Amino acid sequence: MRWCRFQDGERARYGVIEGDTVIGVDGEPWGAYTRTGSAHPLASTKLLVPVIPPTFYAAGLNYREHVTEVAKTQGIEPAFPPHADVGYRANNALIADGEEIVIPRDATELVQYEGELVAVFERQCRRVSEAEALDHVFGYTIGNDVSERTWQRDDRTFFRSKNTDTFKPMGPWIETDLDPAALGVTIRLSGREVGHYRVADAIFSLQQFISRASQYVTFYPGDVLWMGTDGATENMHDGDVVEIEIPGIGVLRNPVVKER
Amino acid sequence: MRWCRFQDGERARYGVIEGDTVIGVDGEPWGAYTRTGSAHPLASTKLLVPVIPPTFYAAGLNYREHVTEVAKTQGIEPAFPPHADVGYRANNALIADGEEIVIPRDATELVQYEGELVAVFERQCRRVSEAEALDHVFGYTIGNDVSERTWQRDDRTFFRSKNTDTFKPMGPWIETDLDPAALGVTIRLSGREVGHYRVADAIFSLQQFISRASQYVTFYPGDVLWMGTDGATENMHDGDVVEIEIPGIGVLRNPVVKER
Repeated sequence: MRWCRFQDGERARYGVIEGDTVIGVDGEPWGAYTRTGSAHPLASTKLLVPVIPPTFYAAGLNYREHVTEVAKTQGIEPAFPPHADVGYRANNALIADGEEIVIPRDATELVQYEGELVAVFERQCRRVSEAEALDHVFGYTIGNDVSERTWQRDDRTFFRSKNTDTFKPMGPWIETDLDPAALGVTIRLSGREVGHYRVADAIFSLQQFISRASQYVTFYPGDVLWMGTDGATENMHDGDVVEIEIPGIGVLRNPVVKER
Repeated sequence: MRWCRFQDGERARYGVIEGDTVIGVDGEPWGAYTRTGSAHPLASTKLLVPVIPPTFYAAGLNYREHVTEVAKTQGIEPAFPPHADVGYRANNALIADGEEIVIPRDATELVQYEGELVAVFERQCRRVSEAEALDHVFGYTIGNDVSERTWQRDDRTFFRSKNTDTFKPMGPWIETDLDPAALGVTIRLSGREVGHYRVADAIFSLQQFISRASQYVTFYPGDVLWMGTDGATENMHDGDVVEIEIPGIGVLRNPVVKER
């Protein structure tokens, strides 16, 4: 099943996508919901960020080549994380498919994409085993963990480097019936393929992250967990379009503009 | 004005506290709201966390003695932050006044309180000057940034050390008409005063944090910013009660239990 969140007049509403049509629902995908009579053509519907998470989790460093490449840009030795320790991003930075990534005036050239698989939680859970972990996942969407590498080196908290407004494109929708380990991620910058990796090559699996974190924290419906990216990443420039494609989900496409 | 969030039958509702009475409202304190006819005795009302923030900001290291003392517990040199760089905490960890702080079974002895002033945002704002910063603050409440110091040293992301479930007591309510720089914070552990400091002694003021962060991030109504703590902190044990008092706001009181 394919779920979206869309602008329905004055309000945001969840919807089911069937073919080229969005069918509005009352309620939430992971709760009690009812289909309304309203149907909208997908092509002319304004899609929103598919969920505003209560808590926005991110795996951070989770692929070997990426850890090595980022360390290079920062002039430090690569350090692989010893545990599946979940980190955080911030809701202010979220934008939807199609919306502009705005590079701040004072950013350096090193503003880069990171294409990622995103898991969306279905129900409240705590102390989950690895075997049961995926039972608590509602579905999957796509994220672009935009990062300013110069700030990333110096910011103690990543507030600018990772959480500047517009630095967290997420969407276009949530797909429910997928095996995450079978997925691949392709990244294109203005039409040119600049990265491809297999989700299964992660240092820690989604199951390992969920199980370890849930020994200490409760996950809630609508929480998201971004799974990290692999490979070297390139700078994005004013006028670029960045696309993250995960076959089985779709394409997250965002234009890039430099703030004047 | 004193605002709370409380359990009203099956639902959470905002309310105004007048003397010993809670008057329920429809809507949100920072939006359009209307007073309902319902009045509840404060003493028998179950207060909830006064707001679930869209984004949960925290100043982190913001008082000189605290920075020095925490560095001591971690065997490192104290490093004072060069900028008012805002950090993050996570909503899963929030508990209300009166609820139990649960020390995990596998935590070390070094589980400590941090009594803090908390600012709650009133309206959406970006690129705010220091002079205008407080115009965007709705009011103030109290936070206890409970921290497991052994994990704090080793966790790359603070997910366990700072964001374990129940590690973020916040409340009991929000007070709107205060000058933050005039406030003092007193911390008591099972009745014994273990800390006292003046908010004005912070390395960076609330105005500096809001202004700097807002050059990059948009704040939204209901976002919270925890301002950090001063002084050495002590371990909390099973059976303790920790109280954070800020005259003008009130007392945030939470019992401590060790998980069996």
